[in-house]
Amino acid sequence: MSQFENVTVVKKANIYYEGKVTSRTVIFADGTKKTLGVMLPGEYEFGTDLKEVMEIQAGELKVLLPGATDWLHINGAGEFTVPANSKFKLDIKTATDYCCSYIAE
Amino acid sequence: MSQFENVTVVKKANIYYEGKVTSRTVIFADGTKKTLGVMLPGEYEFGTDLKEVMEIQAGELKVLLPGATDWLHINGAGEFTVPANSKFKLDIKTATDYCCSYIAE
Repeated sequence: MSQFENVTVVKKANIYYEGKVTSRTVIFADGTKKTLGVMLPGEYEFGTDLKEVMEIQAGELKVLLPGATDWLHINGAGEFTVPANSKFKLDIKTATDYCCSYIAE
Repeated sequence: MSQFENVTVVKKANIYYEGKVTSRTVIFADGTKKTLGVMLPGEYEFGTDLKEVMEIQAGELKVLLPGATDWLHINGAGEFTVPANSKFKLDIKTATDYCCSYIAE
């Protein structure tokens, strides 16, 4: 799906790490939420409340998922899932365009 | 208005200057378009097709509008208009959250 229709978009950006990670929140008719974001090169750590499915639309990055010892490498497109209430690390190599879905369990 | 309702959002980001300027496109029911974007510190030049109304939601920046000799300084919130088919320069001081409206004339 190349666009989301009949959605609500929060006007103000979500800004992290001095703007090196930013996103916009999209709310769907069923109340579910996604963020569309961009991460610039750098190392970051984020925590989850809900389970998150991160779809990488473009970019090169490495991800260290909770409990993992090996970094997952993504180049161009990919997806990974982060459990609820956990932390994960990102090592972003090139500007990365992502779509994050928040999944209530 | 803190959010846009019943809109279409293009999933893929618009990425300029290696990701230092990025935005998402929002399309309204009447066919008009806005972009919600973030600009990180740096100097940029952009060209317009349609007239653009740039609402700065947060950030510190200077703008050189077409034909102007003095830079306009915005800190925190502000707005400026760029005519169609022209170029303008930006000197971004801190991460800047903007909403750009494209106005057909």
